[in-house]
Amino acid sequence: MKEGDHVVPIFNGECGDCIYCKREKTNMCERSGVNPFKTVMVSDGKSRFSTLEDGKPIFHFLNTSTFSEYTVLESACVVKVDPAAPLKKMTLLSCGVSTGVGAAWNTADVKAGSSVAIFGLGAVGLAVAEGARSRGASKIIGVDINPNKFIKGRAMGITDTINPRDQEKPVHEIIREMTGGGVDYSFECAGNLDVLREAFLSSHKGWGLTVVLGIHPTPRMLPLHPMELFDGRIIIASVFGGFKGKTQLPHFAQQCMKGVVNLDEFITHELPFEKINDAFQLLIDGRSLRCLLHF
Amino acid sequence: MKEGDHVVPIFNGECGDCIYCKREKTNMCERSGVNPFKTVMVSDGKSRFSTLEDGKPIFHFLNTSTFSEYTVLESACVVKVDPAAPLKKMTLLSCGVSTGVGAAWNTADVKAGSSVAIFGLGAVGLAVAEGARSRGASKIIGVDINPNKFIKGRAMGITDTINPRDQEKPVHEIIREMTGGGVDYSFECAGNLDVLREAFLSSHKGWGLTVVLGIHPTPRMLPLHPMELFDGRIIIASVFGGFKGKTQLPHFAQQCMKGVVNLDEFITHELPFEKINDAFQLLIDGRSLRCLLHF
Repeated sequence: MKEGDHVVPIFNGECGDCIYCKREKTNMCERSGVNPFKTVMVSDGKSRFSTLEDGKPIFHFLNTSTFSEYTVLESACVVKVDPAAPLKKMTLLSCGVSTGVGAAWNTADVKAGSSVAIFGLGAVGLAVAEGARSRGASKIIGVDINPNKFIKGRAMGITDTINPRDQEKPVHEIIREMTGGGVDYSFECAGNLDVLREAFLSSHKGWGLTVVLGIHPTPRMLPLHPMELFDGRIIIASVFGGFKGKTQLPHFAQQCMKGVVNLDEFITHELPFEKINDAFQLLIDGRSLRCLLHF
Repeated sequence: MKEGDHVVPIFNGECGDCIYCKREKTNMCERSGVNPFKTVMVSDGKSRFSTLEDGKPIFHFLNTSTFSEYTVLESACVVKVDPAAPLKKMTLLSCGVSTGVGAAWNTADVKAGSSVAIFGLGAVGLAVAEGARSRGASKIIGVDINPNKFIKGRAMGITDTINPRDQEKPVHEIIREMTGGGVDYSFECAGNLDVLREAFLSSHKGWGLTVVLGIHPTPRMLPLHPMELFDGRIIIASVFGGFKGKTQLPHFAQQCMKGVVNLDEFITHELPFEKINDAFQLLIDGRSLRCLLHF
């Protein structure tokens, strides 16, 4: 890394040396992986921020601490990308878009001609749609209780939409009817366990794969019965879309530049940094996908 | 099929025509798959058995109805094997041995040099051990509360044993210590949800795979938290070891004849058919693996 490099910060780092980094099929990292409780640098256990007034430490957040004009990151959490790549859009690769596209590419390995159902059409769910569309999925069903999401969704590869509030039957029954028994892949991007169960049951017996992307801060256990596993449906989770950040994001950035994945639709708003709370409100209200903050 | 053929009956048939049979990666079958509630032939919805006294129908069981000297099966549930194969041992391929060996070969795809933990060392668990040993697994940990199982287990590939009743810590902690973080593959062959949770937690973060073989007639849901999926552990179930019976068992029979899998240890008793209840008692008492009944 050198001054002037164009880089993307990642919350799920890749140290390159641990047992996970050395294995092909996981993007966990023992040293610099995602850890919401980590607030300091690994090297010396200290923060790199302090208050101007009295020098008290301000702690780091998610390996990146990017709600700031300058930051300090471990090199495991910094990915160098092609300087010709549009830097504004590259920030999308730091989290939601990589998570969604990667879930379709790396975790599920969506095949051309297959069918997909996406539960929850926020930025992550729409990125799954982009990922599935770019792989050639022939049917991509978007499920959301906010019908405004369908407009953008259709521009991003979604072929069919379901609003559970308009239905009298459970969504999984409708999806099974639409697809001759269920989709090949379903993605849970809503962070809701009842939705997770619908996603699971929407996939086809014998081979259906459900990928969990939503984070679930809940005391509830998985709402699945052990016997249900014997129907041949599989459920797995995806963190950062299964991307090994340092190794694989530079190539992903190239794919975006080539238009394999279209990033244009994801940045719906731009605001000065001072309006960060307005940006959060847009997100909470379901009115934005991603809001770019600038200094 | 013709008179004099040597055949193995299978409870999980393969019709060859349905959507499942036509897919590579599932051994479900729409027409002749495992179904404990099916009691008649598919073709005409009738039974082929009746009482001698008054001709009342006796119903079929698990597609095979083999607690009898003669039986009638759908061709989807009959597998022709090499007439040179020892017929007595071939009966083991009808259920438990295929289930266990196949779980290691097909479902988990155990690699040479890997580590394995098997929870429950009945015939199915020991067949998993045979399957893992034949694939070159370097550490095969057998877990059972009956220490008598370890004697046979060691003869069948198990390298390390754990009796949970001798331990003060949960088994998954012991296995993690023994293996530097957990096994590559764990197999639940006990039919107990608390054991299932131990098996899941015994596998390595990031890539551990838990295969569920035990049947769970329980009102309880899966004892896993949704967030635990994000540690990269995967749980899947295996039915009949993932074998497509008609397509793959003839080759499996050949492998057994070559000694790739050793069937000799599985038949521990032989009794006349009249003593069928004694045979069940041996099984219930944990004193037998398989008892051959003959007429």
